[in-house]
Amino acid sequence: MTAPLFDTLAIIGPGLIGSSIARAARAQGAVRSIVASSRSPETRKIIAKLGIADKVVETSAQAVEGADLVIVCVPVGVCGTVAKEIAPHLKAGAIVSDVGSVKGVIVRDMGPHLPDNVHFVPAHPVAGTEHSGPEAGFAELFENRWCILTPPEGTDAESVDRLAAFWSLLGANVEIMTPDHHDLVLAVTSHLPHLIAYTIVGTADELETVTRSEVLKFSAGGFRDFTRIATSDPTMWRDIFLANKEAVLEMLGRFNEDVAALTKAIRRGDGEALSEHFTRTRAIRRGIIDAGQDTADADFGRSHGHED
Amino acid sequence: MTAPLFDTLAIIGPGLIGSSIARAARAQGAVRSIVASSRSPETRKIIAKLGIADKVVETSAQAVEGADLVIVCVPVGVCGTVAKEIAPHLKAGAIVSDVGSVKGVIVRDMGPHLPDNVHFVPAHPVAGTEHSGPEAGFAELFENRWCILTPPEGTDAESVDRLAAFWSLLGANVEIMTPDHHDLVLAVTSHLPHLIAYTIVGTADELETVTRSEVLKFSAGGFRDFTRIATSDPTMWRDIFLANKEAVLEMLGRFNEDVAALTKAIRRGDGEALSEHFTRTRAIRRGIIDAGQDTADADFGRSHGHED
Repeated sequence: MTAPLFDTLAIIGPGLIGSSIARAARAQGAVRSIVASSRSPETRKIIAKLGIADKVVETSAQAVEGADLVIVCVPVGVCGTVAKEIAPHLKAGAIVSDVGSVKGVIVRDMGPHLPDNVHFVPAHPVAGTEHSGPEAGFAELFENRWCILTPPEGTDAESVDRLAAFWSLLGANVEIMTPDHHDLVLAVTSHLPHLIAYTIVGTADELETVTRSEVLKFSAGGFRDFTRIATSDPTMWRDIFLANKEAVLEMLGRFNEDVAALTKAIRRGDGEALSEHFTRTRAIRRGIIDAGQDTADADFGRSHGHED
Repeated sequence: MTAPLFDTLAIIGPGLIGSSIARAARAQGAVRSIVASSRSPETRKIIAKLGIADKVVETSAQAVEGADLVIVCVPVGVCGTVAKEIAPHLKAGAIVSDVGSVKGVIVRDMGPHLPDNVHFVPAHPVAGTEHSGPEAGFAELFENRWCILTPPEGTDAESVDRLAAFWSLLGANVEIMTPDHHDLVLAVTSHLPHLIAYTIVGTADELETVTRSEVLKFSAGGFRDFTRIATSDPTMWRDIFLANKEAVLEMLGRFNEDVAALTKAIRRGDGEALSEHFTRTRAIRRGIIDAGQDTADADFGRSHGHED
């Protein structure tokens, strides 16, 4: 184990992501001590019981006192409020970061509140599961996943390096890009897929001709794959769509054009166009598996009650 | 082990599904012997090597000679041709079935060719993986999955019961419905999800502003879930969309309306409408898990290099 990279880490809002950071930071000896804050008495009780923080406090202001690294893990829509709350209590020279899935709005909402004597390095670990809350976290969540840092122009390079080293120690691969490019990339790799998944699950639930029980029974035909991400935290996702409105609408526009093209091929009975399209999309999954971002096992490795 | 339900089973076109039927039928002692036919010398060689059939022949006509149960496992678009080929060679009293994902067209394409002295009981096991070909099959594929039988009006009830018993022995739950209702149910639980998955994967592949390498790297944000079913066999899926055109277009219409409603909510910044929708869709996954049709494990149980 190497020497800790930071003395005190403050996690504000320890849910799935925040609690996983705490677990991973401790497992890797990345920090000397961890303080977690939550306004919810229930969450504070769970964190204390899980024993994944050295100290559990009620307010974010208390949490950041003396902390060298502050990671804000609340939904995107309240990051600005939290920044305002913590600003007067931050230690000089501290690094302030977050884990939000949208970065342009984080820079706009948090940045102006933070004092000049701290280093603001927004981050987005592209990792998670469909489960929410501190009990769903685990130390290995970030292993071989990407963490994107989006430092605003003029950010202290050493602070960016230190945060990158922290995420590397937690098992992540680190990439740096502008907030705007991040928001475009995530619109297609994450936000549009979630919106489509939420939509199709809703569509299936509202049919008069096919019962809900039939939808559930026969979901192994493909539908069930969409339901996993459609169970993600509703508040978090509401905030993401509102915060990344323009990029999401742009990707939705592209997607709608492509749906229209395939619909036309079906309507006209154009088998060749369909085959061509379906053959082309196969290569992408191979690329994802080769990039270490998914399993090659059939059915995502779901158990079939066998070990074939 | 019980007495075999059929003497000889003929599997025409042993790919993922056909080879899994052969494996499962043998594992359960459901039949006394199995003959498999494929026009492809490569497939015949693989079947012989896998040793999952007692006999491997070239033509479907040879395969059905003396067979008591014939299961046609070729793409939906060629089932009619196969029915015509096998018709003169079928044993009197044989049961003829298939595994096609669309049933109305199967009844229309196969039915007229089959002689009156055989029993035609179309079937659709709602099971599979994204992999294709005989080597991808396994005996447990149908365990706790549904197999839908769609006997045309006037079908011999005893034959329906015998085929139901066969599928039950292979581990499936059996349901009986009309071909048209089947096609509507599968349009929403399987065909629409595949079409949407194929579309979104294509959309992501065609962007100028986000590179393919970025799409692959950051796919763990949600996109990768769509890529699994978008790697399914292109020929099979071309045939499905052409064969179930009306029901698929109907479901696409519904889906488009729902996409438009969520798009409007995003454009207007209507957070309440988004939250409400995202909260509602959570219950569906719980229902699918309770119905035994998916795993409750995070990330479909994908390995995170840990056993949490």
